[in-house]
Amino acid sequence: MFVILVYDTAAERNPKVLKTCRKYLHWTQRSVFQGQLSAAQYRSLMAALTTVIDADHDSIVTYTARSPELIDSHTLGVELGGPGDIL
Amino acid sequence: MFVILVYDTAAERNPKVLKTCRKYLHWTQRSVFQGQLSAAQYRSLMAALTTVIDADHDSIVTYTARSPELIDSHTLGVELGGPGDIL
Repeated sequence: MFVILVYDTAAERNPKVLKTCRKYLHWTQRSVFQGQLSAAQYRSLMAALTTVIDADHDSIVTYTARSPELIDSHTLGVELGGPGDIL
Repeated sequence: MFVILVYDTAAERNPKVLKTCRKYLHWTQRSVFQGQLSAAQYRSLMAALTTVIDADHDSIVTYTARSPELIDSHTLGVELGGPGDIL
């Protein structure tokens, strides 16, 4: 599945969130990752993030689609992250 | 079409970017909006944002799908913006 992940976490937990997301997804833009995952990888990422965030204060939203062809992506202005970019 | 918009713009331009996005979309989370737009509304939003951002420094990424049913959304932790929430 194609996954877009947006995080809004407290600064002190950002490094762990970033590290976890980078294991599974590409960095796209400030606080946004995207990538192609199997259902098992997606569940594993969600489980890992659950242990890292404070669920009372942090928020992580994922948007998933069965295939990347179902989603068009368009950038206005600067093209930031790509598969080769590291935050 | 269903639109997810993520912005990464300089602080001094954020208020104008937010104001423009709010005319068309719902705020979801820090720097993320989403909503249902016609193709004409989407073009109008992109045109408005083009006049507001500095294309050499700012970045706005949109993900669009023909229908919201093609995208599943899931939140870990705090549920932030909804249709009724204002940033």
